[in-house]
Amino acid sequence: MEYKMPPGRNRMMNRLARNHLWLLIGCFLLLLIVSSLLCHYYLSDVSSFSVGPVHRSRSKLDHSDDLDHLKSSDLKGQIEELRAIKASVNNELRQLEGKRQQLQVEISKFHIQAESFREEQDSMEKELKQTKLSLEQLKLEQEEIANHFMPVLKAPEKILSSESITDTLSPPKFSSLCRMHSCFDYSRCSLLSGFPVFVYDTSNYFSLLLIDKFIKESVSSAFKSNPYVTTDPLEACVFVVLLGENAAGLNDKDLEQLLTNLPHWNGDGRNHILVNLPRTEKTFDMFGGIRTGRAIIAQSSFVETVFREKFDIVLPPSFSRSDGDSWDELSPLSPIRRKYFASFMGQFWSADNKVFDMNTNLNLPSETFQGRQLHLANDAEELIILETVIVQNLKHMKFTSKDNVFLQFVCDNNMALGFKGEWGLCADGSKRSDILKQSTFALIISPANFSIISTTVFQARLYESLKNGAIPVIIGDYTELPFSEILDWRRAVIALPKPRITELHFFLRTLSDNNIAEYKRHGRMMWETYFGTSKKIITTLLSVLRTRLQIPPIPIADEPSPGVFNTSFVPLTFEPASQGLETDELLGPVEAPFASVKFRENFTSYIHLENYNHPGDPFHLYPFTPFEKVLPSEAKFLGSGYGFRPINKGEGGSGKEFSESLGGDLPREQFTVVMLTYEREAVMISAVQRLKGLPYLNKVIVIWNNPSPPSADLRWPNIRVPVHVIKAAKNSLNNRFLPFDAIETEAILSIDDDAHLRHDEIVFGFRVWREERDRIVGFPGRFHAWDLKNKSWLYNSNYSCELSMVLTGAAFFHKYYAYLYSYVMPQAIRNKVDEYMNCEDIAMNFLVSHITRKPPVKVTSRWTFRCPGCPQTLSNDSSHFEERHHCINFFVTVYGYMPLLYTQFRVDSVLFKTRIPHDKQKCFKFI
Amino acid sequence: MEYKMPPGRNRMMNRLARNHLWLLIGCFLLLLIVSSLLCHYYLSDVSSFSVGPVHRSRSKLDHSDDLDHLKSSDLKGQIEELRAIKASVNNELRQLEGKRQQLQVEISKFHIQAESFREEQDSMEKELKQTKLSLEQLKLEQEEIANHFMPVLKAPEKILSSESITDTLSPPKFSSLCRMHSCFDYSRCSLLSGFPVFVYDTSNYFSLLLIDKFIKESVSSAFKSNPYVTTDPLEACVFVVLLGENAAGLNDKDLEQLLTNLPHWNGDGRNHILVNLPRTEKTFDMFGGIRTGRAIIAQSSFVETVFREKFDIVLPPSFSRSDGDSWDELSPLSPIRRKYFASFMGQFWSADNKVFDMNTNLNLPSETFQGRQLHLANDAEELIILETVIVQNLKHMKFTSKDNVFLQFVCDNNMALGFKGEWGLCADGSKRSDILKQSTFALIISPANFSIISTTVFQARLYESLKNGAIPVIIGDYTELPFSEILDWRRAVIALPKPRITELHFFLRTLSDNNIAEYKRHGRMMWETYFGTSKKIITTLLSVLRTRLQIPPIPIADEPSPGVFNTSFVPLTFEPASQGLETDELLGPVEAPFASVKFRENFTSYIHLENYNHPGDPFHLYPFTPFEKVLPSEAKFLGSGYGFRPINKGEGGSGKEFSESLGGDLPREQFTVVMLTYEREAVMISAVQRLKGLPYLNKVIVIWNNPSPPSADLRWPNIRVPVHVIKAAKNSLNNRFLPFDAIETEAILSIDDDAHLRHDEIVFGFRVWREERDRIVGFPGRFHAWDLKNKSWLYNSNYSCELSMVLTGAAFFHKYYAYLYSYVMPQAIRNKVDEYMNCEDIAMNFLVSHITRKPPVKVTSRWTFRCPGCPQTLSNDSSHFEERHHCINFFVTVYGYMPLLYTQFRVDSVLFKTRIPHDKQKCFKFI
Repeated sequence: MEYKMPPGRNRMMNRLARNHLWLLIGCFLLLLIVSSLLCHYYLSDVSSFSVGPVHRSRSKLDHSDDLDHLKSSDLKGQIEELRAIKASVNNELRQLEGKRQQLQVEISKFHIQAESFREEQDSMEKELKQTKLSLEQLKLEQEEIANHFMPVLKAPEKILSSESITDTLSPPKFSSLCRMHSCFDYSRCSLLSGFPVFVYDTSNYFSLLLIDKFIKESVSSAFKSNPYVTTDPLEACVFVVLLGENAAGLNDKDLEQLLTNLPHWNGDGRNHILVNLPRTEKTFDMFGGIRTGRAIIAQSSFVETVFREKFDIVLPPSFSRSDGDSWDELSPLSPIRRKYFASFMGQFWSADNKVFDMNTNLNLPSETFQGRQLHLANDAEELIILETVIVQNLKHMKFTSKDNVFLQFVCDNNMALGFKGEWGLCADGSKRSDILKQSTFALIISPANFSIISTTVFQARLYESLKNGAIPVIIGDYTELPFSEILDWRRAVIALPKPRITELHFFLRTLSDNNIAEYKRHGRMMWETYFGTSKKIITTLLSVLRTRLQIPPIPIADEPSPGVFNTSFVPLTFEPASQGLETDELLGPVEAPFASVKFRENFTSYIHLENYNHPGDPFHLYPFTPFEKVLPSEAKFLGSGYGFRPINKGEGGSGKEFSESLGGDLPREQFTVVMLTYEREAVMISAVQRLKGLPYLNKVIVIWNNPSPPSADLRWPNIRVPVHVIKAAKNSLNNRFLPFDAIETEAILSIDDDAHLRHDEIVFGFRVWREERDRIVGFPGRFHAWDLKNKSWLYNSNYSCELSMVLTGAAFFHKYYAYLYSYVMPQAIRNKVDEYMNCEDIAMNFLVSHITRKPPVKVTSRWTFRCPGCPQTLSNDSSHFEERHHCINFFVTVYGYMPLLYTQFRVDSVLFKTRIPHDKQKCFKFI
Repeated sequence: MEYKMPPGRNRMMNRLARNHLWLLIGCFLLLLIVSSLLCHYYLSDVSSFSVGPVHRSRSKLDHSDDLDHLKSSDLKGQIEELRAIKASVNNELRQLEGKRQQLQVEISKFHIQAESFREEQDSMEKELKQTKLSLEQLKLEQEEIANHFMPVLKAPEKILSSESITDTLSPPKFSSLCRMHSCFDYSRCSLLSGFPVFVYDTSNYFSLLLIDKFIKESVSSAFKSNPYVTTDPLEACVFVVLLGENAAGLNDKDLEQLLTNLPHWNGDGRNHILVNLPRTEKTFDMFGGIRTGRAIIAQSSFVETVFREKFDIVLPPSFSRSDGDSWDELSPLSPIRRKYFASFMGQFWSADNKVFDMNTNLNLPSETFQGRQLHLANDAEELIILETVIVQNLKHMKFTSKDNVFLQFVCDNNMALGFKGEWGLCADGSKRSDILKQSTFALIISPANFSIISTTVFQARLYESLKNGAIPVIIGDYTELPFSEILDWRRAVIALPKPRITELHFFLRTLSDNNIAEYKRHGRMMWETYFGTSKKIITTLLSVLRTRLQIPPIPIADEPSPGVFNTSFVPLTFEPASQGLETDELLGPVEAPFASVKFRENFTSYIHLENYNHPGDPFHLYPFTPFEKVLPSEAKFLGSGYGFRPINKGEGGSGKEFSESLGGDLPREQFTVVMLTYEREAVMISAVQRLKGLPYLNKVIVIWNNPSPPSADLRWPNIRVPVHVIKAAKNSLNNRFLPFDAIETEAILSIDDDAHLRHDEIVFGFRVWREERDRIVGFPGRFHAWDLKNKSWLYNSNYSCELSMVLTGAAFFHKYYAYLYSYVMPQAIRNKVDEYMNCEDIAMNFLVSHITRKPPVKVTSRWTFRCPGCPQTLSNDSSHFEERHHCINFFVTVYGYMPLLYTQFRVDSVLFKTRIPHDKQKCFKFI
């Protein structure tokens, strides 16, 4: 019995390990019962009655008679005999025990072998399944290729006009009737021409005109770096002529002569753009009286008779820098409502060009006060009366409402800049911006004379309001706003007809904080993108024309991907074990790598002017964006099925069918893993190795941030997809987001080399990202918290039920954001990242939330992912968190507001933790 | 020993129940060892050597000597004595056992009592916490009310002009210079005027003009039902004059006289709109030569000299119905690409108004073929040459490309409708639409004469292309499209300048299937919303003017909510047990009910013309929409904090802090439960009762679909929020989505009376909906599956990893969709729901996905929710699924495409199934 016990327990331990709890309990109970029965047997054998020791003696009595008959010598012999028997039996028993143990060892060996066979079989089966899937995939691809005529789209190539066009044409009878279809020569501007622009060297032709030095230099430097500019006038689509003030007082004929003498004027100045960019409020209409042939005019001052709609272009003034970012000149968005509800500063220039004091009481009839018939004014005197009505209504608003309104109708020292019939600008610029910075709404009264469409002073008011974060409220909606052909001014400016002056206060009062914030955010975006520098104004001017001609912008440039190895060097490789698969789940077909389709919307992306009216980059053509629309669900079954992989051919299904196809509303695609590494070869190699067999993986990009190349004897795992090791120019965390040309997919999975994600997590993350392409889809969440004491933001990494960032150490995002991060986001942010060697993930979260106004998407339950054994990471630094607090507040200053938004949920697979019928499979085993 | 065993096992079973597995195993092992030791003891007591039976006899030998000394009589007495002792001991033991059992019963009773005390304490603590939270909430509200000046916004009231304006004014010198600021009298159209429209009774004034009978009747019926129309000319903002063909051949002066004689013309016709709505392609410009004063002209034909931009309005023709839905006249979106890549049918009317045969070879010089200088044409002959170039290029495209292009430049029997200088329409309308239905692109060549801005034939081509689902490609981009002031034609139409004819094929070829689908979808939406009937055209015409005047549209009407009880009847109530709370979790403060803020964007909602350019309802003002923008995150801490409840005052946190505040990016709000019930009083009452203590609940609406009122003796639970029982007009499932005026919140939680949702699930669902306000956020998911055999859709309710619908038996959605469902969605869908008494949830999912192009959001792991004991529901019918298949395919026909989209994820609370530190709480205990 002693020998039997341990194997019995062993067996039970095995069962225990298999969790057969009830069986186990049953066994124990059985054992217990058996053992107690045994005890009982012995006891009852000894005594058939109860109370123990007394009866024992009695039973012994019964046998004593027989024993008396035995003799002692016999007894001794018998005992010897018995001893011998005992010894032989003992021996036999020992031998048997030995054999038994031997057998058991053999049996357990067999068990182990059987187990390994079974595992092998399982993995082979999985491989078989995957191969089958891949085969099906290949067949589908083959069919698609056979059935579908799909033109290969590329970024448009430049096609240049080879002929020189020198036919001189006579100018049109009425320049005032010029429109694109009647005055523009499209033959010089083919859709694939790339919009070549020839710029006249102003100093050669207009020595008599005074061009502001800043304008001249900044504009010529803007053109120097402009990708559309060509030096060959024969291939040019448009010709730019920069003009300035007529300081020498040339008469109209002489001015006309200057134009006609331009070498490519060809008699009618077709495809010429006459640019007069103002630097001061005093700049005025240069082209009032002169004949400009078929040329397009771009300036800030226009009268009704000169301005030709959809032909001429209204420019903002260039009061600020020549080039660079402009965020540091702008005011923060919050507080949404400022000290002054509204403000106005200015003085009226009457008909005789004298400043007119509106404080003089004109004794107006009371009905005029009602704003009635404001529109019927015809002559100059009436105009003054109308302006006085506006002034009186504004004063009425100031004195009757509780709102704080700042009004100044007489400039200090009567110094006002402006011209006849308009509201002059008080000369003290710093006081102007001071008041605007404290105003929610900035009132702008349009020139009294309806025939004035725009003046530089009017444009200066608009410019200053936007710059200082006050919403421009234009009283008199007949004026023309700059670049209105592509900019949706309704989002940034409030324009009311003058008769509505009586309703102005009511109207402005109905705006909610949300409304006001949106106006301000849009206005800020417009100023920053289109007005901030001379270069931006010039770029926008050319964009207006290019958009009008339906020519796509130049494609955004990819970052070159220099390999870290010499071309001659072939890195060593090794075959990683199949355990690299990490899970025995079938997660999807392993296909040959294929790139995402590029430039699908070459000629239609311009169509919605939304590019120009949302934050982002309106000046480049992107190979793909996260905003493309999906096809209707039935289209893929009715002729547009190219590349689609519907679940179970459209029938749908649970886990098994789901794992076989990507499904969803979009065609199949793949993703690229981008991994930054620095001085941790072993960690990186094992990270790459873990990716073996990962479905939908297109390529692995390793960014080698280390100045010295990888060790020559480093062995790289062969994981069936290309591993491209890029030599970074310098050790910067910004490299993580560079849009390398080696990245050929829309989806980028950015992972830290020490981030340990399972394959199922990655595949699920990818599927989620496919639905939320404009957001960051990642694993560990973080959030921004308000520090009540210091009125500033803190970075917070605690477990939380609300999050606003996901770490880019394990996140999917669209390559579009890599372009924006590297080329469009203000340089100051990338500098801060380099300064701290930190915060690049915060910067990316800011950028994406700024563009989309959406929070990121957190996937599954991970809050951390570092591998426990890995060497120290940057984030363990003690200063790490301090830096992140700093970053977050600095970034808010750059954006002018906190773009991050909160989310209170995270995303799991559909059947996670759901009880489902036995014949169904979950979407994923563990997530 | 026999007695001790059972209690020992009992104790172990208890432990087992507590899952202390290892302790249990330890105990068993101990017992096993003890029992085997005991056995061993007995055995070794009997024999100290091994081999059993042999030694047994020997040991008995050793004691036999002692026994010899005992006498038998002594023995008997001793035995008797011992038996007595045994009996008494046994007795004692039995008594003790009885006592023990008694004590145990008592102890377990105490246990139960203690447990119930503890529960009570817990629930009291929870109540205390909730009361504290509510108090804090109240304090916050009080502070907010004290600190914030928040004007109460309502739907705008009508303010009518009380004065009569009869001053006669002289007409302006040049009608051609008329613009809103110079020719329109704003004083009649205050922002709060409600845009009153006076319509002249045409028959009174224009008996000499021939107005098409259909137009006359349909337009006057359109005006009759128009909410803006007033019969009082004194309060009118605008005056509508419906004109027709000058059939009697009146001269210009007589025509002018007719206008001037209109009773409210007042000398200059200000605020008058002269409408000439065409019913045939032959209608032409009525107002070419005559002076129209300050009146606005609306018609389909315009020449450059008559048309005044931003003043006159281009109308589409009204070729179709008078009123009603139009989906049945439209073609499906798929297949995206049709038989003909492009098509054109027409014949050119040359200068002498003769049809010109373009097949005649003109022997054009080869360079003209290149499209060069197409723009420089001036006289009539040149015009013909240019059109010939276009024809030749189109033919070149037909013969050189692989694409199937349908071209017909000579009409059958030379029958072409049209005028001088334009491409006439071939007379066979059914052939035209036949070809268009098979064309992806419909080519439309603008009139040859640049000075023609629009003709009825041109508008007819546009109208027919959109109607038949062919994308209009306008060659010659100088024409004016209808209602272009509010409609973004770039999304539905491709317009190229004529010189680009050489690049036409290339351009069209670059469009992807996605692009084409979007164009088609947008064009369909435009035709259906703005062109489909005479009534829609008239409504749109007035909308253009109203939008121009910045007057908001009339507010959408709420559905009245008649109570089911007589006003005198007070229903019986009862106090539900506090177990109604369902969970002991604190899920949020219970606040007094408050309504959502309405009409926050009265005067700004028109600003983005997006209303007009997205599916939905552009003709009404909505109290709130799901598309409003959020404030920047910092604004709530810097002055715009009204109503905001940031988590832990902005610091953030996990479960505890999370449960105390709503957090997120939006101010606090509540939701309304809407429950449909029919003949299941008990089920409904218990469903209402379960809502007691539910945080963020504003009100419960019970829609009483039963014609007979509730039993008078029915007792209603008092759940602290109002329960409003609405008497339904008829038993219809559409009632579930009626926008009752009793619903005062944006969020509606629609639940079936037999749907059993826990409070934590509801609160989490509400929090998720707050982030995804434009989507349906619900619990059980369903999907649409493609039936390969029948090429149609199937409804599928199986467990699936991809879903596209959530059941509205347990879902949150925005009240905005209740309006759209009831008033804007085509009537045919609601009829189908009534016909089958089924599919209302499918209809709602279609509607929302159609508007947003997003899938719904599924929350937590539920796939079903019926209470197991509840009586039969509709869905158990055998025909239920068949009907749902039918519905889904019928709805696809109505929308013209399958609007549902797939999603592959569901949403959980952030820390669901996450291991977190002990000092933190999860967001919710179970979800």
